[in-house]
Amino acid sequence: MNTVEVCLLPELYSHRKTTGNHVAVIVDILRATTTITVALEQGASKIIPVKELSDLSKYKKNDCLIVSERDGLQSDFADFGNSPLQLIVADIKNKTIAISTTNGTRAIAMVDKADRIFLGAFANISALANKLKQLQQNIVIVCSGWKYRFSLEDTLFAGALCEKLTSTDNFSFDDDSVIAAMDLWKTAKNDLLNYASQTEHYKRLYTLGMGESVSYCFELDTCSAVPVMENGILYESENSQR
Amino acid sequence: MNTVEVCLLPELYSHRKTTGNHVAVIVDILRATTTITVALEQGASKIIPVKELSDLSKYKKNDCLIVSERDGLQSDFADFGNSPLQLIVADIKNKTIAISTTNGTRAIAMVDKADRIFLGAFANISALANKLKQLQQNIVIVCSGWKYRFSLEDTLFAGALCEKLTSTDNFSFDDDSVIAAMDLWKTAKNDLLNYASQTEHYKRLYTLGMGESVSYCFELDTCSAVPVMENGILYESENSQR
Repeated sequence: MNTVEVCLLPELYSHRKTTGNHVAVIVDILRATTTITVALEQGASKIIPVKELSDLSKYKKNDCLIVSERDGLQSDFADFGNSPLQLIVADIKNKTIAISTTNGTRAIAMVDKADRIFLGAFANISALANKLKQLQQNIVIVCSGWKYRFSLEDTLFAGALCEKLTSTDNFSFDDDSVIAAMDLWKTAKNDLLNYASQTEHYKRLYTLGMGESVSYCFELDTCSAVPVMENGILYESENSQR
Repeated sequence: MNTVEVCLLPELYSHRKTTGNHVAVIVDILRATTTITVALEQGASKIIPVKELSDLSKYKKNDCLIVSERDGLQSDFADFGNSPLQLIVADIKNKTIAISTTNGTRAIAMVDKADRIFLGAFANISALANKLKQLQQNIVIVCSGWKYRFSLEDTLFAGALCEKLTSTDNFSFDDDSVIAAMDLWKTAKNDLLNYASQTEHYKRLYTLGMGESVSYCFELDTCSAVPVMENGILYESENSQR
């Protein structure tokens, strides 16, 4: 029997209950982990997460495509914004992509004790859940939030993933965040997009004209790719060495 | 129109959305804010919250009753544990009480920008809501949690209080934590004690033999006292100078 735990913000990862070895799942539904999942699904060979926007330009020189976003908006020097829909129609097969976003890449930098890090999104939730069930390891799901503030859409995903994992009898939990996430997911799941439309982040991006991209982020199982981290680089897990 | 916001942990108070003047409500259902509410309801004249357990002994010398608790347990030198039921049957009328608890007094110490601080519990929720409605100020509800971890019972209370406030048309919100807290409260409220019995903190205290005291903490409106902070001391708000 393995355990599953939810950290509602990256800052709470260092206070997690899970001791010892564990696998982390990082979630930034709007939109970093959705965008990265789509990029690998579309055949990008690897994704380099970059915490500081100022460091992105050096990757531009190295024949690498750039995805950047701060406060929802694409930077001038970037090839793409943090939008899954931009990447679905782009020719990115076998390309390297460097990405920096407001919250997602910050979360990746803070999860420093996991044996392995996967990225989760509604886009790959079933593929991810199947992979986690095979691993037989304890799981810590880390929500990215928004600038140190709780984000409901990340928590809904955490609840959905916990529901899938705990339905198998192979995972137990003793964590109030898991209870809360699963009950919020139960409230939302029958009308997910409508429920999500009341969240701060949905409204912020919708106002910026990104409604279509945001809607995509709440579609389930559009991808089979599961991003996994190796030495600071993200790969599609079926192509990785681990 | 005023706003209401929820901080799921005291550490998130410094990242709150509410700018400028506001009133804070601190919540530690199990059990500090319930215990303090009961103590004032029973006629204690004032409550001195003390962050460090090691500082409590000096109050003992000054003819003051001591309430102490760490990890659920009463310290040897204390007059009472952090239990509302101990205080209900004690003769504490007009007495001063110094209190230090695992989480509640830590939260009080972290909320450093509010115009006024009230303490909230299920025990005084209606009296508190009525007082807040009269103030016409923005409200920030701060959940104490448990050692930097999310506590569901504090969030349920926050949801219940938000439901009361936003039902009046005098309060609006744009905060995912408020949505989550209200939806969790809706899930729990028809069978609150049973729902709460699955939380980490309930189970921890129940195992320590404190089931009766814990059950009391989920009873609504047993008190009319509303603790308010003045210069670091807690008073019943009707007796305060403000």
